[in-house]
Amino acid sequence: MSLLYEGALQDLVEEFGRLPGIGPKSAQRMAFHILQADTADVDALADALREVKRRVRFCDVCGNVAEDATCVICKDERRDQTMICVVEEPKDVLAVERTREYRGLYHVLGGSIDPMAGIGPDDLRIKDLLPRLQSGDVQEVVIATDPNLEGEATATYLIRLLSSVGLTVSRLASGLPVGGDLEYADEVTLGRAFEGRRSVS
Amino acid sequence: MSLLYEGALQDLVEEFGRLPGIGPKSAQRMAFHILQADTADVDALADALREVKRRVRFCDVCGNVAEDATCVICKDERRDQTMICVVEEPKDVLAVERTREYRGLYHVLGGSIDPMAGIGPDDLRIKDLLPRLQSGDVQEVVIATDPNLEGEATATYLIRLLSSVGLTVSRLASGLPVGGDLEYADEVTLGRAFEGRRSVS
Repeated sequence: MSLLYEGALQDLVEEFGRLPGIGPKSAQRMAFHILQADTADVDALADALREVKRRVRFCDVCGNVAEDATCVICKDERRDQTMICVVEEPKDVLAVERTREYRGLYHVLGGSIDPMAGIGPDDLRIKDLLPRLQSGDVQEVVIATDPNLEGEATATYLIRLLSSVGLTVSRLASGLPVGGDLEYADEVTLGRAFEGRRSVS
Repeated sequence: MSLLYEGALQDLVEEFGRLPGIGPKSAQRMAFHILQADTADVDALADALREVKRRVRFCDVCGNVAEDATCVICKDERRDQTMICVVEEPKDVLAVERTREYRGLYHVLGGSIDPMAGIGPDDLRIKDLLPRLQSGDVQEVVIATDPNLEGEATATYLIRLLSSVGLTVSRLASGLPVGGDLEYADEVTLGRAFEGRRSVS
């Protein structure tokens, strides 16, 4: 694309185009939306961008997003202090919270073991996990890494590492997604569903 | 979704979610990208947003986006002053420019006639078009509205309006898109392609 928009509009199209998952067409549509939006709304977005960089950090204890030294979950004394759920990313914390099934604490690794990308155990917040387990309160660690190659590798590493600590270590169940069709399940998922079948009588 | 992120991050997710075509998942992914991006890059995006509102306006002559009273195309004396291409939106100007087939001027209507949405001819920049045609330079008006219901209605209105002005009025050809398969063409497009067939011998 040789000729494009003039200065400021083109700058905005390019800035939007740097965001993940935003192609040139979306960036253009978003820029035109901004052009026609109220100045107050545009200022709100610009302010929100700067505030995130200024105020949001990562929890010193669990690695979740936080606005203070510790996150809202670590600060909440009503949470079950005997369980720690290990996840890859802060967005996984939100996903688990949405289920309302879990009331314990979290530990956010900041990624998964991925030798192809040069990410090993030392690049993740694994070493910060062990002191948390020695406080005496924690009785169970739930490993909730992603059900993909890197997540499985990370889970395997953690299970071996934690085997000597003397706690209950559990993993999320694999199986058929609720609302899905059996005939459309991939064979690995269906295989896991058989492997993890439960007696109901 | 009851529990979400804390303050600033949640604000940004919501602000991103207001942009066109951005759902909750995309907004979240974009917000996390910002959280991990360099402060300089985030400032660049925030500045670009404000600059667009501050600097970008619409050309007094043709309605295209501009940073001065007139846009770069209207200012460019090398453009063919005998032709005006009528389009719906500024992004259509860019689309036509990319073809490199057209070197004339533009007239941007700012939308199309859409009675269902309450948009009539008076809501578009149609009345600004007529004085431009009376300067004596213009010999041809190319109507390049979108090939949909509203665009066709707008084209029909313009053709009738311009019939008394005594200029050449033309429309873009309808037909098969280049690179497409004939068997997948919808019947209206294929019908138009027959209607507009050209003798080649």
